[in-house]
Amino acid sequence: MAQSNLNACFSPKNVALIGASENIGVGRTMMFNLLKSPFGGTLYPINPKRESCLGVKCSKSIKDIPAGTIDLAIIAVAARFVPSTVKDCADMKVKATIIVSAGFAEMGEPGLKLEAEIMSYARPVGMRVIGPNCLGVSYSSSGLNATFAADMISPGKVAFLSQSGALCTSVLDYSKKVGFGFSAFVSVGSMLDVDWCDLIEFFGEDSNTSAICIYMESIGNPKRFIEACQKVTPRKPVVVVKSGRSAAGKKAASSHTGALAGADEICDAAFRRAGILRITQISDLFSLMELLNMQPIPKGPSLSIVTNAGGPGVLTTDELDIQGGILAPIDKAAMERFNAILPPAWSHGNPIDVLGDASPERFSDCVKIAVEDKNVDGILCILTPQDMTDPTATAHALKLLANCGKTFMVSYMGGLVIEEGATILRQAGVPVFTAPDLAARVFTYLSRCQENIKLIKEPIPAVPSLGFDLEKARKEVRGIYAKALETGRTILTEYESKKILAAYHIPGGTTELALTADEAVAHAKKIGFPVVMKVHSETITHKSDVGGVKVNIKDEAGVKAAFEEIKANVAKNASAKDFLGCVVMPMVTLKDSYEVILGSYVDAQFGPVVLFGLGGILVEVLKDKGLGLCPVNKTFALDLLQQTKIYTALKGVRGRAPVNIDELVVIIERFSQLIADHPMIEEADINPFLVSPDGIIALDARILVYDGKKVKEENVPHSCIPTH
Amino acid sequence: MAQSNLNACFSPKNVALIGASENIGVGRTMMFNLLKSPFGGTLYPINPKRESCLGVKCSKSIKDIPAGTIDLAIIAVAARFVPSTVKDCADMKVKATIIVSAGFAEMGEPGLKLEAEIMSYARPVGMRVIGPNCLGVSYSSSGLNATFAADMISPGKVAFLSQSGALCTSVLDYSKKVGFGFSAFVSVGSMLDVDWCDLIEFFGEDSNTSAICIYMESIGNPKRFIEACQKVTPRKPVVVVKSGRSAAGKKAASSHTGALAGADEICDAAFRRAGILRITQISDLFSLMELLNMQPIPKGPSLSIVTNAGGPGVLTTDELDIQGGILAPIDKAAMERFNAILPPAWSHGNPIDVLGDASPERFSDCVKIAVEDKNVDGILCILTPQDMTDPTATAHALKLLANCGKTFMVSYMGGLVIEEGATILRQAGVPVFTAPDLAARVFTYLSRCQENIKLIKEPIPAVPSLGFDLEKARKEVRGIYAKALETGRTILTEYESKKILAAYHIPGGTTELALTADEAVAHAKKIGFPVVMKVHSETITHKSDVGGVKVNIKDEAGVKAAFEEIKANVAKNASAKDFLGCVVMPMVTLKDSYEVILGSYVDAQFGPVVLFGLGGILVEVLKDKGLGLCPVNKTFALDLLQQTKIYTALKGVRGRAPVNIDELVVIIERFSQLIADHPMIEEADINPFLVSPDGIIALDARILVYDGKKVKEENVPHSCIPTH
Repeated sequence: MAQSNLNACFSPKNVALIGASENIGVGRTMMFNLLKSPFGGTLYPINPKRESCLGVKCSKSIKDIPAGTIDLAIIAVAARFVPSTVKDCADMKVKATIIVSAGFAEMGEPGLKLEAEIMSYARPVGMRVIGPNCLGVSYSSSGLNATFAADMISPGKVAFLSQSGALCTSVLDYSKKVGFGFSAFVSVGSMLDVDWCDLIEFFGEDSNTSAICIYMESIGNPKRFIEACQKVTPRKPVVVVKSGRSAAGKKAASSHTGALAGADEICDAAFRRAGILRITQISDLFSLMELLNMQPIPKGPSLSIVTNAGGPGVLTTDELDIQGGILAPIDKAAMERFNAILPPAWSHGNPIDVLGDASPERFSDCVKIAVEDKNVDGILCILTPQDMTDPTATAHALKLLANCGKTFMVSYMGGLVIEEGATILRQAGVPVFTAPDLAARVFTYLSRCQENIKLIKEPIPAVPSLGFDLEKARKEVRGIYAKALETGRTILTEYESKKILAAYHIPGGTTELALTADEAVAHAKKIGFPVVMKVHSETITHKSDVGGVKVNIKDEAGVKAAFEEIKANVAKNASAKDFLGCVVMPMVTLKDSYEVILGSYVDAQFGPVVLFGLGGILVEVLKDKGLGLCPVNKTFALDLLQQTKIYTALKGVRGRAPVNIDELVVIIERFSQLIADHPMIEEADINPFLVSPDGIIALDARILVYDGKKVKEENVPHSCIPTH
Repeated sequence: MAQSNLNACFSPKNVALIGASENIGVGRTMMFNLLKSPFGGTLYPINPKRESCLGVKCSKSIKDIPAGTIDLAIIAVAARFVPSTVKDCADMKVKATIIVSAGFAEMGEPGLKLEAEIMSYARPVGMRVIGPNCLGVSYSSSGLNATFAADMISPGKVAFLSQSGALCTSVLDYSKKVGFGFSAFVSVGSMLDVDWCDLIEFFGEDSNTSAICIYMESIGNPKRFIEACQKVTPRKPVVVVKSGRSAAGKKAASSHTGALAGADEICDAAFRRAGILRITQISDLFSLMELLNMQPIPKGPSLSIVTNAGGPGVLTTDELDIQGGILAPIDKAAMERFNAILPPAWSHGNPIDVLGDASPERFSDCVKIAVEDKNVDGILCILTPQDMTDPTATAHALKLLANCGKTFMVSYMGGLVIEEGATILRQAGVPVFTAPDLAARVFTYLSRCQENIKLIKEPIPAVPSLGFDLEKARKEVRGIYAKALETGRTILTEYESKKILAAYHIPGGTTELALTADEAVAHAKKIGFPVVMKVHSETITHKSDVGGVKVNIKDEAGVKAAFEEIKANVAKNASAKDFLGCVVMPMVTLKDSYEVILGSYVDAQFGPVVLFGLGGILVEVLKDKGLGLCPVNKTFALDLLQQTKIYTALKGVRGRAPVNIDELVVIIERFSQLIADHPMIEEADINPFLVSPDGIIALDARILVYDGKKVKEENVPHSCIPTH
């Protein structure tokens, strides 16, 4: 019912405008807009003080209209009257309301109270609420313009959803000038009820919409958001401009992972899991909207550039390459066709330089060849207005290719003399950009986004098959940290941390606990020499600082000596009671190994995050890392690796053998599952994590858990990855 | 004389158009353009077949006009007639010619011959030649339009120089629409004579020009180019768009330095030394031209953003921050002034959100406060066309601040309803951008460029004071590699390489050569144990691969054993004659050291390049490096360090003490001088180069020199850094 009631916001039969007015202001503008663009039903202006409004008979109250008549009530009255108005709407079986009034959450406590009251009436009857504090909604296929914007959207294929009403007015005005349209325009306001998820699902199903563009300030419920997007993005691009790239929003954190994982980068990781294309520039948003409205999404990254000038062609190639696009190769058959129609001085390659004296026919014939070339996913035609160029006649020739089936874009570089041609092309459905490099960029963004979407098609199972008994492992892990919490510790010992890793079959090497020197000797003999010994302590976290680590111990005598030495060091540098024994482990020397880091961190919004990256002393300087939301499957574990530069080395460089990437992927998958399974794990760092052609091993591990007395498990952010 | 003759290209008294015509084409268009925009002198059309051209009396030949009458001859005749025409011009004391005709270098050998012939006439008499194969020249202060473009430039302050005629036509047409002008427009063509250096010097002195924008495909003579720019950029910005970012232009190279230094990155380094602002996006070029034409260059990076909408303000802040700009802080006095005029709901910070209902006065009052705030270097005013916004009236209020003395920019976000206001502002001299983030970006580019220019003000002396006898060092180095070359070697031994470093006082540690085991023992005793021994060989370059390295040798017996073992290993893994002895050096273990790389490489165009970066196995994966042209002074040596991420670590991280940066800077300066002094050094790698709080030392070094028999020193690219 909720989703079908949402439909009333866009295709209502009858609409009430509560707060209709003839006085200059929102109530009058909305009245005008609703009348000027007929929505196919009846408009009921409501104002207790008026007989009529702009020639239309007014009702005193929505209560005067028979129940069930009104699908959509637009509420434009002062905030303090809104709750009672909403109650009336609910009573009269209104399906949905759009509250444009301001004065709610942004006013603090009193406003929040009003909001709670509104929802107390709306929720029980399933009445949907858009806003408050919004510009309203337009929907071109029904004709509804329930906004107080200056104009109605032109028909188009893109739904634009915005958390800024001001940006709506800008985008609308821009679109009018350039000449592209929208399927819908939604100013979401404070999203008291209807939120991104509702709208993404709605427009995902909406046959009038082929792409969704969003200006976002806050994401709302991340799990629902990702779930809604994952349903839609494989079929329709969802493009988001979200501010916050520069936010100094890093939480103070004691772990490397925490220090490395910026809030905005976690947001990027979430968008990646959602299949969203995030862009950062306002001009890119404008250009993408134009492209998405007019042309099909590229099926791949290969662009053919047809240009009448060399320089702009090369600059465009630079941008294409840097963004990860590909200059489509020209096969032999196409080359012969180009040779047949172009003067000998043509470039004989892509960019296809059709030369300064290109006629309209030469231009369009070359584009046709590119369209028919199976290597080509999109075509960009660049025109500079030279002495012998006829931009208008060329536009007439090119417009015939508007629906060629591939992504077709034009850059008319100039201002005045190219204007008529640009307009002709846009009217025919060809997007026209002043800067050709911008066209190459948005083309590549879209094709990259399509690549990313392939990743999200593989569902994450609730109980993944990891090659071991997951239920047993979960229980074991809970037992380990519960025990530590019993003694009041939230930082687990290395011994405990490694036991937790071992429960999830993450190789930490043998790590044996010895309470006496004799036990240590027994362990060492079993492990085989040389061994490493470290202090076992529930209080000391930086073991080397207190002289608590001895490496390369070669025999029994050495073990005994090390035990006593560590004990003495700890007593001296910390205190005797910090020493609880030693852990004994083999001395691991892996040839050609890399020191990496595998860690986790709980983001307040997105829950547990896994981080893989280059470790060592330079970890926070080089910041070579990949981030993902927990849990990852193998596909996203590999994606995590591929985000790093060190991945190139892991695959084998300069004669070094490659690391077993498959094994590493499995370990990352298991680690992320461990973290997702246990929301009480606040931070986990495997550092150093040794990765080499001969094996992969967690040399040290450090796990922090939330204090169960202070924080309840249900209050801790859980994984926001939907499972199926 | 050359430069004064160049002046004839822009402000000629009398002009001859050779190839004037009434037939549609270049000769006719140029005739029209020269007549339509009077240049203040007499136009002499020349065509042997005509009595008059477009109503102006024609001469048969330039020989028919008294010698010395014509300052500038524009040549628009077929290529094969150009040389004789140039000869006639030279004979008749013409000061300069613009050859628009095509058909020269681009046609290969025959064209090159024509070009040589042209210069054989022009050079002896100092007659300047622009082109061939160009669109011509416009100069607004004289009125000259010696182009076959569709229009004359509007007056403005920016000189636009372009290696693409087609881009000229696009920029011109764009400028006409947006409404900004140019001081000059030069299509440089193939730069047979007049090149970037001439033009940069000319417009550097030209009082009508306040900035130079260039579209460049090739740089020409790098040394002259850098020298010309260094003179001009401290006074006038020089902005270059140069293609080639994506070029797979990396030379196959055996050294890490060679592999790391991409051709385009070296070009970036050269531009940096020249004080040039390089931009990559065509839309940035358009925006910068608009800004440079209308507003003063920012004195610093602090921007104040005055906006009537929050969202665009935040997106703009993101871009500002990422580009390295600063959101200007609001001091107490300014805050009080804002509080006095803004509603309580204003943002109380920068961006200054003047709210959706802002009146024109509120907007302009806030901009005024920002103008008067000493923290502020520039102001960006963002307007979104909301319900209560009056873009046109706001423009009238804001235009009064067009000449406020600080960089003032406006973003009118929209299309139709903002158009009138945008035009009013532009006409008043305020640049208007659709996307506010673009404005923040170009503002930051300009302020960053001003920062860079500070670096180039310190001249590079021909004989720098490096703290040692440079002439003696030069002689010593020449002696070392000359000796190697005598034996037919171009790869120097580690022993030789370190001797070369030592000559320039670059610490390589003691490295002694031992031809016998006994000599080795003697050296080791002198050095002190433990020592490292490596094979000394003129043939083996990868010493560890043949078992030619022994570390941590603790006593005399160990030295003897190591000597024999290395000898045996080499005999086994290579051959007995590859072993010429051992080098003995102290076993250096520097606490908290970083393994970095310091190397050099000879770029075919820019000559010797110095590279500093992170070393170790991941050097080519992480690509954390700084590049500079040799030689660097201390300022640029530090700049080199600052280009890297490892620099952050060198300054001290996570409790580690800092490295002596001053000492490192001196070493880099010396190294770069070594390379600049000796063009015959083809490649030098100090790798590993150990840098630590306790010292800096070249652990290994590898120098390659050109084979003097095959390559003469004068043919090798030399340093292109001008010295004074």
